[in-house]
Amino acid sequence: MLKPAALKPGDEVRVVSPASALTPEQTADGIAFLEAEGYRVTFGRHVYSRNGHLAADDEDRAADLMDAFRDPNVKAVMCSRGGYGCARLFPHLDLDLMAESGKMLCGFSDITTLHLALNRRGLVTMHTPMLITLSVPREPWVIESLRQLLKGGDPFPAEAKRAETLVGGTVQGVLTGGCMCLLCDSIGTPDPLDAAGKIFLIEDVDENPHRVDAMLTHLRNTGILQSAAGIVIGEMTGTDGRSDEKIGAWPWRRIVEDRLKGIDVPTVVNYPFGHMKTMLSIPLGVRAELDADAGTLKLLESPCAV
Amino acid sequence: MLKPAALKPGDEVRVVSPASALTPEQTADGIAFLEAEGYRVTFGRHVYSRNGHLAADDEDRAADLMDAFRDPNVKAVMCSRGGYGCARLFPHLDLDLMAESGKMLCGFSDITTLHLALNRRGLVTMHTPMLITLSVPREPWVIESLRQLLKGGDPFPAEAKRAETLVGGTVQGVLTGGCMCLLCDSIGTPDPLDAAGKIFLIEDVDENPHRVDAMLTHLRNTGILQSAAGIVIGEMTGTDGRSDEKIGAWPWRRIVEDRLKGIDVPTVVNYPFGHMKTMLSIPLGVRAELDADAGTLKLLESPCAV
Repeated sequence: MLKPAALKPGDEVRVVSPASALTPEQTADGIAFLEAEGYRVTFGRHVYSRNGHLAADDEDRAADLMDAFRDPNVKAVMCSRGGYGCARLFPHLDLDLMAESGKMLCGFSDITTLHLALNRRGLVTMHTPMLITLSVPREPWVIESLRQLLKGGDPFPAEAKRAETLVGGTVQGVLTGGCMCLLCDSIGTPDPLDAAGKIFLIEDVDENPHRVDAMLTHLRNTGILQSAAGIVIGEMTGTDGRSDEKIGAWPWRRIVEDRLKGIDVPTVVNYPFGHMKTMLSIPLGVRAELDADAGTLKLLESPCAV
Repeated sequence: MLKPAALKPGDEVRVVSPASALTPEQTADGIAFLEAEGYRVTFGRHVYSRNGHLAADDEDRAADLMDAFRDPNVKAVMCSRGGYGCARLFPHLDLDLMAESGKMLCGFSDITTLHLALNRRGLVTMHTPMLITLSVPREPWVIESLRQLLKGGDPFPAEAKRAETLVGGTVQGVLTGGCMCLLCDSIGTPDPLDAAGKIFLIEDVDENPHRVDAMLTHLRNTGILQSAAGIVIGEMTGTDGRSDEKIGAWPWRRIVEDRLKGIDVPTVVNYPFGHMKTMLSIPLGVRAELDADAGTLKLLESPCAV
């Protein structure tokens, strides 16, 4: 795997909006954080555009991404937010060029789609909070995790919340995964999720209970879920209490436990990443160890080139 | 393809609930319809059970299905409703036995999952209203369409609503498709959607606008959408006006037109099937002709064995 260079003060971080739209107010705190770290923040042309559920036309969002990955001065590409839209960009992206650039891609949620495509092409990418994520106050260890990962350090502070054990044991493997609906949307495409022998991270937000069930069942019916060496469930944020009167519901935790039944690999739940209030920054495509008894991950290699 | 026998007065129709739960009040009008047609209505043991978003445990819902398909007296299996749950049943079903039984399976929505699996195994199945569908008054031609299909007649009454043309032209092919989220959930599984060279029916209900986009994009990124010989879009029922404030939205019709752009096969939209107020009954797995200028389908072969 090609690892992005660790960021140093003075490095240029390009902000892009490859999915849905946001306002400058929603980026202010994130920009302040990056600048306080000593990075020089620049912007894609369409960061604050808006076109329905998309930040801009596909061509324009893709152009911002390609400009960033082509620019020799840009060291990292930070997504402003997720929402939806990355999967629409494939016809307009040169993914090989993006992967070979060795630049650091940062983001999560809808950005899962880009992580999968770039990891598959050999580039380590960063599953991190985005600008919009930082518009809400976060625990100090959340910020410390992000700070450390950007500069190639250990993103798992000792104070971080620990996950709960579903199946005990310890396992080593490459980290993959992200937001479940995007993971499912990659199946059967030229850039599919591949969790075989890996530590498989899964979380999602604002999904109805029966859709959480349906997506886990999809992952199970394809055999992808059973192929993982270890499973790290975050949270199905906002799922419980969603009005689903027509269909009825179990709590998401019960759905997860039900759908993982019989998959006897080290597994944790409520691991702090993704759409939870408190989330670690996690490099994807690097080897890590999951200690499902302790509820922790640790990296077995540096996430960045040094 | 093996075709189910056309139903005759006195034939036994078994009602099952392979997905979500419902109440006896929601089945009364549907039962009355079937009985008025002269059919003898019998029930799986768990038709009125309820377990969260499921009508009963997987084992029990599957047992009701298998009992129906194994019973030599049962001629047709009518699903009480959809909701969610069929995809969970695969480990518990003998799909080969079901397909070889030659029995008539009736339903839509979540039942799409079973249609795909049985069509793939060579059995023609029926995309029809279910008992819960008939608990709401429907246009006479909706009832006439169902009546005709059950007895092997022409399910496309002249009075039926016509679809709007997106791409004109006429094409012949085998009918496949159904409810989009279930179609997407089949990708990569042992029983995947296959629309290549076929007339591809797509509709859905209660999906957020960005998810309608994501699913069509999934179908596009896999190449499945482009492989169809003709495309019949129903309605994305309940999508417009869904609160999607965080992400924003286009109307579903714009999303559909955008995602079909450049796919130059005969295509219609608002074809009356699925979750629309007015829906035709459509046999899946038989050859039909789509006249995208007239906005109509016609069958090129009988849907039933005679």
